[in-house]
Amino acid sequence: MKSTMMNDFALVLPVLLERTAKLFSKVEIVSRRPDRSLHRYTYGDFYRRARALAEQLQRMGIQPGDRVATLMRNHYAHLEAYFGIPCCGGIVHTLNCRLHPDELVFIMKHAQDRFLIVDQDLVPLYEGIRQKVNISRVLLFSYGESACGDYDGYEELLAGASGGFEYRKIDEDDAAAMAYTSGTTGNPKGVLYSHRSIVLHSMTIGLTDGLSLSQSDVVMPLQPMFHANGWGYPHAAVMLGAKLVFPGPHVDADSIIELLAGEQVTLSGGVPTVWTNIAEKLEAEPQRAKFASGLRIVCAGSAPSEALMRRLAVHGIHTLHAWGMTETSPFATINRRKSYMPVLRGQEAYAFNCRHGYAFPLIEVRAVSEGAEIPWDGKSMGELEVRGPWIAGDYYKCPDQAGRWTEDGWFRTGDVVTVDGEGYVWITDRVKDLVKSGGEWISSVDVENALVAHPSVREAAVIAVPHPRWVERPIAVLVLQQGAAVSPQLLQNFLRERFSKWQVPDAFIFVDELPHTSVGKLLKSELRRRYRDWNWSKTEQAL
Amino acid sequence: MKSTMMNDFALVLPVLLERTAKLFSKVEIVSRRPDRSLHRYTYGDFYRRARALAEQLQRMGIQPGDRVATLMRNHYAHLEAYFGIPCCGGIVHTLNCRLHPDELVFIMKHAQDRFLIVDQDLVPLYEGIRQKVNISRVLLFSYGESACGDYDGYEELLAGASGGFEYRKIDEDDAAAMAYTSGTTGNPKGVLYSHRSIVLHSMTIGLTDGLSLSQSDVVMPLQPMFHANGWGYPHAAVMLGAKLVFPGPHVDADSIIELLAGEQVTLSGGVPTVWTNIAEKLEAEPQRAKFASGLRIVCAGSAPSEALMRRLAVHGIHTLHAWGMTETSPFATINRRKSYMPVLRGQEAYAFNCRHGYAFPLIEVRAVSEGAEIPWDGKSMGELEVRGPWIAGDYYKCPDQAGRWTEDGWFRTGDVVTVDGEGYVWITDRVKDLVKSGGEWISSVDVENALVAHPSVREAAVIAVPHPRWVERPIAVLVLQQGAAVSPQLLQNFLRERFSKWQVPDAFIFVDELPHTSVGKLLKSELRRRYRDWNWSKTEQAL
Repeated sequence: MKSTMMNDFALVLPVLLERTAKLFSKVEIVSRRPDRSLHRYTYGDFYRRARALAEQLQRMGIQPGDRVATLMRNHYAHLEAYFGIPCCGGIVHTLNCRLHPDELVFIMKHAQDRFLIVDQDLVPLYEGIRQKVNISRVLLFSYGESACGDYDGYEELLAGASGGFEYRKIDEDDAAAMAYTSGTTGNPKGVLYSHRSIVLHSMTIGLTDGLSLSQSDVVMPLQPMFHANGWGYPHAAVMLGAKLVFPGPHVDADSIIELLAGEQVTLSGGVPTVWTNIAEKLEAEPQRAKFASGLRIVCAGSAPSEALMRRLAVHGIHTLHAWGMTETSPFATINRRKSYMPVLRGQEAYAFNCRHGYAFPLIEVRAVSEGAEIPWDGKSMGELEVRGPWIAGDYYKCPDQAGRWTEDGWFRTGDVVTVDGEGYVWITDRVKDLVKSGGEWISSVDVENALVAHPSVREAAVIAVPHPRWVERPIAVLVLQQGAAVSPQLLQNFLRERFSKWQVPDAFIFVDELPHTSVGKLLKSELRRRYRDWNWSKTEQAL
Repeated sequence: MKSTMMNDFALVLPVLLERTAKLFSKVEIVSRRPDRSLHRYTYGDFYRRARALAEQLQRMGIQPGDRVATLMRNHYAHLEAYFGIPCCGGIVHTLNCRLHPDELVFIMKHAQDRFLIVDQDLVPLYEGIRQKVNISRVLLFSYGESACGDYDGYEELLAGASGGFEYRKIDEDDAAAMAYTSGTTGNPKGVLYSHRSIVLHSMTIGLTDGLSLSQSDVVMPLQPMFHANGWGYPHAAVMLGAKLVFPGPHVDADSIIELLAGEQVTLSGGVPTVWTNIAEKLEAEPQRAKFASGLRIVCAGSAPSEALMRRLAVHGIHTLHAWGMTETSPFATINRRKSYMPVLRGQEAYAFNCRHGYAFPLIEVRAVSEGAEIPWDGKSMGELEVRGPWIAGDYYKCPDQAGRWTEDGWFRTGDVVTVDGEGYVWITDRVKDLVKSGGEWISSVDVENALVAHPSVREAAVIAVPHPRWVERPIAVLVLQQGAAVSPQLLQNFLRERFSKWQVPDAFIFVDELPHTSVGKLLKSELRRRYRDWNWSKTEQAL
């Protein structure tokens, strides 16, 4: 029997936009311009401009489901696109401006983007591929300046709106946003987020047991807004009325530290590389900035090391460990201490905080090995599978990827995990990054985490290299701290205190830089390619 | 275009039940038994028993949508019914054990309840109406004791389950729970809550900007579980894994104070009458109990007075002011200070806290007078209308109530409000309780709030009485504090400091007790009936 509730009240973005206009029109949004000055306006201004964009897109003939691509930094106009596009029935397709032009062409053609909004300083990137894609109209955003050149000015467009925009009916399952995973292998794959998934994910971010984002927070997403919906921060901030701070194009550590302190940010986020840079700056000059008390960050993309969490904590930056991926909106698990668990201190606390946590409400997780669910015993290893209302159920027009979903509808994450008796997930590796030596699995992530805890090591990658006798053996590729020196023998001894002999890499290679993807993930496939012909005869082996 | 998310992942109660079993099986649920002893078990136990109930209901032939009534106090078995019944496709229909038997008969027949679970001590109530209703099977709950007599024992039934219950497919719009409003006029009207509305409402309760309920809370609902889903506390606690404490049949102030302190409750709720009793006990013996720091309560049903909030604050009990009704699940608005508002102290803080707050995320409010939306200026008065995913869109089989919804789909609350420029709602009266004197509206609630702030006044009701010249005039009916004495003249002067002359009641009548509904609301219709033939010639009038 159907309930008597308002079952047709849809979970759609216009509801969030209207709420913030009615209740939080005075709250500020701060964005750094290219000239380093700060642009400030309010949610009231944002609301009018997002609706002006929606109105003008309608005038331009946008049809329900049309993709409007953005090639933009984190700033207020990108936020306007986040809402203006889906609120008139379009799909905001956030493009990753760090991709290789060929990859951008692939993605834009695959997504069939119809319109594009582009930041002034990213125009050359678009110009380079303009002939290869099929954008019918380009809007140029120049941080409030008038546009010149070939393209329509974003400001001029908005100025021409009447203010009389009216919402079309939107179904909550309709797509609102689109992002492609910058996979380390294969072609990029697109995820179409729904209005519903974004609204529910925003609620989750606002849970006390989630990221506890509230209207009293000052939120600065350092994760690019083209990366998995900016991890949902922008939507949640708008829904709840939290002040937003955007770094614009200036994501160097000095600029970030200045904004963190200057705007008294209370919640931020970003990949470990960004936060490692910040930690280094703070260590060099510990008294330089006074942060808001209780400043917390989600550090993800790849997992932050225990060492990084410690270094940030010294400066009053508390790391919340959450896990997810583009396909999971992105938040799927979060590490929160349970009420009956003891309060941990020091070493134990950090070891605990490194776990990837347990599933958010409405998200279900399991780990599977050889077709069977593994027990939650903290030892058995299996591939993490997830499902829930903000998990992808498919990729956009990508039938060859159907195998990423199980027959009973779970998404295969590609992460190898253990799950302990309390439901805390521990990601030991990507399925394809595991090392199998002599029939035994070695977690490259565990060894990497141990290595970066060494004071001389800045970054570490452990990869499998083909071996005539053991099939595969691990080797470590390392970037040392500036001015540091350490011998392979010393690192080997350091690891042997924690690992079995056969788990310790046989070779330690020092390099100036490790290869990363455009969103800061270690590009292990490139390393494996580089070292696949390793000459074992010259390596003195531990085994 | 449809999104590629898992759009068919439904927001249903089994998801909450499974989560708590997987992640919070060690968390405790405490219930007071009739003999005053405490029953303790865990969410793990609760999970097995809720599923055992679901399994046995299936064996008894329950069909999707069948109503299973409960005539129960707040305790663990009622929680089992909250989940066991809807998780097998049934609808848990919580009956108000304080209703007149005739009213119960009306409701049970109207709802067509098929099964009933009844507390041992409430059996006589059922026996009295047994012949007039059509319950096919009765389960008797005796707090773990074996049942005897005519009915099936609840414990015996659960003991017979195999543990192999399997969920049926449930649609998120399907009804999960049912409650009738104990309206002060007309027949009771039924609301059918959906799985979806309950899940979304639970998320809201968990928002930092909501009730901030988290797994680290200890939650004690004093509001009966038959009153608007126990205000959603039980569902939210299960979803999030918070410890639950139930008072069972002992809701006297002494028993409650003992549990609040003994279990270190951090979030509670209940009607003002309950909390007034508690305040009095604490004032008589201030040192008797040490509560958890940060203990917060939602005091609702009728609005708590500023005076009551102050009295509770002295003892470390902070009142969160939220507003709602049976038709709104119940939470629709909450009073939270916005980030840019100054921190208020003393008198100003309490005056602010008395406002009913602004709309929760996903809830929309407006106030309408004579067909037009009133401006949010803090002065204009109109009837509050609401809509959202956990607002009723209809009553169950009650076509003559269609007028409670506007043509464009908003629910008419029957409350008269002002809304200020920040979106804070202030309920000035029920539509039918407003006093219209000489063409001017007088808010009975404002005058009542002022009266209970007087140290001699315990409870106050202000009602309209027909008047030959002014059409209506207000009179006040009062219960004084024990041992207190005060003259009408003194109260009149007291009110004149705050109100215009014509807003002050003309008569002050002292009584031993005021009439209340079964859920503790002032029964003004009864007072109006009692005083409708007021003899104005004997009253010295202010005007």
